Amino acid sequence: MTKPLRLGIAGLGTVGIGTVKIIQRHAQMLARRAGREIRISAISARNRKRDRGVDLSAYAWEDDPVALARRDDVDVYVELMGGENGPAKASIEAAIAAGKDVVTANKALLAIHGHNLALAAEAAGRVIRFEAAVAGGIPVVKALSEGLAGNEIRRVMGVMNGTCNYILTRMEESGLTYDAVFEEARQLGYLEADPNLDVGGIDAGHKLSLLAAIAFGTRVCFDAVQIEGIGRISIDDIRRARDMGYRIKLLGVAQMTGRGLEQRMTPCLVPADSPLGQLQGGTNMVVIEGDSVGQIVLRGAGAGEGPTASAVLADIMEIARGCRVSTFGQPAASLSEAVPAATSAPARWYLRMQLADKPGALAKVATVLGDEGISIDRMRQYGHSDATAPVLIVTHKTTREAIDHALSRLPETRVVEGDPVAIRIETV
Amino acid sequence: MTKPLRLGIAGLGTVGIGTVKIIQRHAQMLARRAGREIRISAISARNRKRDRGVDLSAYAWEDDPVALARRDDVDVYVELMGGENGPAKASIEAAIAAGKDVVTANKALLAIHGHNLALAAEAAGRVIRFEAAVAGGIPVVKALSEGLAGNEIRRVMGVMNGTCNYILTRMEESGLTYDAVFEEARQLGYLEADPNLDVGGIDAGHKLSLLAAIAFGTRVCFDAVQIEGIGRISIDDIRRARDMGYRIKLLGVAQMTGRGLEQRMTPCLVPADSPLGQLQGGTNMVVIEGDSVGQIVLRGAGAGEGPTASAVLADIMEIARGCRVSTFGQPAASLSEAVPAATSAPARWYLRMQLADKPGALAKVATVLGDEGISIDRMRQYGHSDATAPVLIVTHKTTREAIDHALSRLPETRVVEGDPVAIRIETV
Repeated sequence: MTKPLRLGIAGLGTVGIGTVKIIQRHAQMLARRAGREIRISAISARNRKRDRGVDLSAYAWEDDPVALARRDDVDVYVELMGGENGPAKASIEAAIAAGKDVVTANKALLAIHGHNLALAAEAAGRVIRFEAAVAGGIPVVKALSEGLAGNEIRRVMGVMNGTCNYILTRMEESGLTYDAVFEEARQLGYLEADPNLDVGGIDAGHKLSLLAAIAFGTRVCFDAVQIEGIGRISIDDIRRARDMGYRIKLLGVAQMTGRGLEQRMTPCLVPADSPLGQLQGGTNMVVIEGDSVGQIVLRGAGAGEGPTASAVLADIMEIARGCRVSTFGQPAASLSEAVPAATSAPARWYLRMQLADKPGALAKVATVLGDEGISIDRMRQYGHSDATAPVLIVTHKTTREAIDHALSRLPETRVVEGDPVAIRIETV
Repeated sequence: MTKPLRLGIAGLGTVGIGTVKIIQRHAQMLARRAGREIRISAISARNRKRDRGVDLSAYAWEDDPVALARRDDVDVYVELMGGENGPAKASIEAAIAAGKDVVTANKALLAIHGHNLALAAEAAGRVIRFEAAVAGGIPVVKALSEGLAGNEIRRVMGVMNGTCNYILTRMEESGLTYDAVFEEARQLGYLEADPNLDVGGIDAGHKLSLLAAIAFGTRVCFDAVQIEGIGRISIDDIRRARDMGYRIKLLGVAQMTGRGLEQRMTPCLVPADSPLGQLQGGTNMVVIEGDSVGQIVLRGAGAGEGPTASAVLADIMEIARGCRVSTFGQPAASLSEAVPAATSAPARWYLRMQLADKPGALAKVATVLGDEGISIDRMRQYGHSDATAPVLIVTHKTTREAIDHALSRLPETRVVEGDPVAIRIETV
């Protein structure tokens, strides 16, 4: 029998305790599948005394995760503390220096420091695995870096923040405003301590940058992700979009184009009858398009104790079975520098604005759009009781630059009240 | 640099040629990802002279796949000929005996001989991988045996024969009969040479038995799969099901119950708004439920050159990277004997019958059902112009045995014309 694989687990929050529970509950099953025992040697967390509802007495305790990462009786250092710097980074660096493999759920850390950590790990002959960092229980890192390893990846898309999707779905179903549903989500405990990580799109942007690195063989480049949160989405937009057969999602898109690597995490309209459009509530979905495989869709819980711990176990089992996959699917030294695309791929756009109820108002808007080379696919003016009329326009394919320029010129017409809304329509 | 991984590929049909094309087109990308060159040493097929549209001149040719499997310059034997016995089996056995790893897309062979082949491979320290045998390009074998390796699997479900799903979808959309759409599919080349492999559910049953072995740690047991094809599905059933919010799918279900292992590949009703219900056309979908991860849904092309070759490459890359996963996710010797469940889990049932237009006819049917302990959730009688009325019944949860017994007693009522139709409603 091969020697046990010995773990040091730092961070005993939801995911850490979930991981301990699986290892305790399924010791025999895991040993059978891995061909060796999965054993926890030592643990670490901020508060030793807290009752976590699990018997931890069999494991050595370290107050300092760095000390945990260096222990002789640890083969794999499992970092589940979070935070893009501080103890998480220091302890992973210590683990690599001490010759340990690393499993982490820390998307923020990897989005910022992933390339350097991967270089260090590979120089030391160690691996860093991070299935739990992206889309919770969905085995998407494995699907992309292993299951689809024979494909040149064309595009990766995804709804990767369950809280945002919950908020948008709940707005549609309840008719409540963004602010009201945001407050609901906060009270339900669905939001991070800094809610901007969720609703601002940052957390999902971290995840997208990691998938993009694997997909396109480029160094992870979070700074180049164009990020826009869901805070400006109004119930009106959700309703109008639905009327035209669309739903609004906080959608991540990464694609390699002739203009460079495009990474966006922004609200988009998607067809309501597409898999992404049908995704309601807190569930996550990742869509991967490869040159041979076509389109693969993966769907599942993106957060929570069980799903995230399931992903941590996937990485632990991979290491236990002797699989040594590079952090980003190929040696970090062979990853190319990502050249961010200066412009995004042309798309159809949804425009909503309030027009003064004057003769010729629509014509003036149409003229501005036409001047920018934007042609109109559909236009709807809604009934109204006050002095302005809600108008919806769906354009044919055009660039973001043309849209921005047209929007900047609309005030000249003196018929548009307030700020128009423009949302990209993604082809999915 | 590690030594090249040298392949011998037997079978140059759609999948074999697709595999060669990927290796030729993406040589550098594959080498970067695998950390070593993926090299084809030799090939074999029935007809050497046929023009396959690909330059094969760099590879040694063997007429005999067994000779190919034994070549000294082959590390991995890639069997893409098909057939559950004959040269496929002989050559895989020869490869294992000669110390080669094996990659195959051969679901029929593995469903029958998989256990013995896995035992032989593991005794020789070799692996057999078969991602391409199940659901084409969807990396479901990897998801189940690796990505969800920390889960006790509760249930595996799936639409795993694209031809059947195409036929059922096309019937719904066109209103054509089964026979008419079957003929269309035949002319489009969607059917196997023996169409019963497709529409009879056998091909999909092979796939289900392989997933069940991985999911539940049991020896593959195809004989115990309850199989029923789609030949008896009428356009009436499709329409009536739709009226009640369901779609009919040839659905595979494997679950471990207190009564033993249940494996079914049968037409089922599923809610039209569920991921399985929304799956239209030739696409495949597999749903996996684990104790920690909850429900994971995987969707993609289940057949075709590119998708299937993508799956073959996934296995080749896994071996190239040094991953050694047992055929069924744990050593074959540790797989338990599957005890087939004598009865299937209770479910709601859809019943359709023609009732004589006589007073008390419905009451008589309801009485028979009641006698068998079957309670009725919904009943609809449709308008009609002839002497019999179509009647639909949706039952509450009951056993298949109760349904069968009730059906056998319906003729006693003398009000039921012809054979009633009974289709299980699966909770998805």
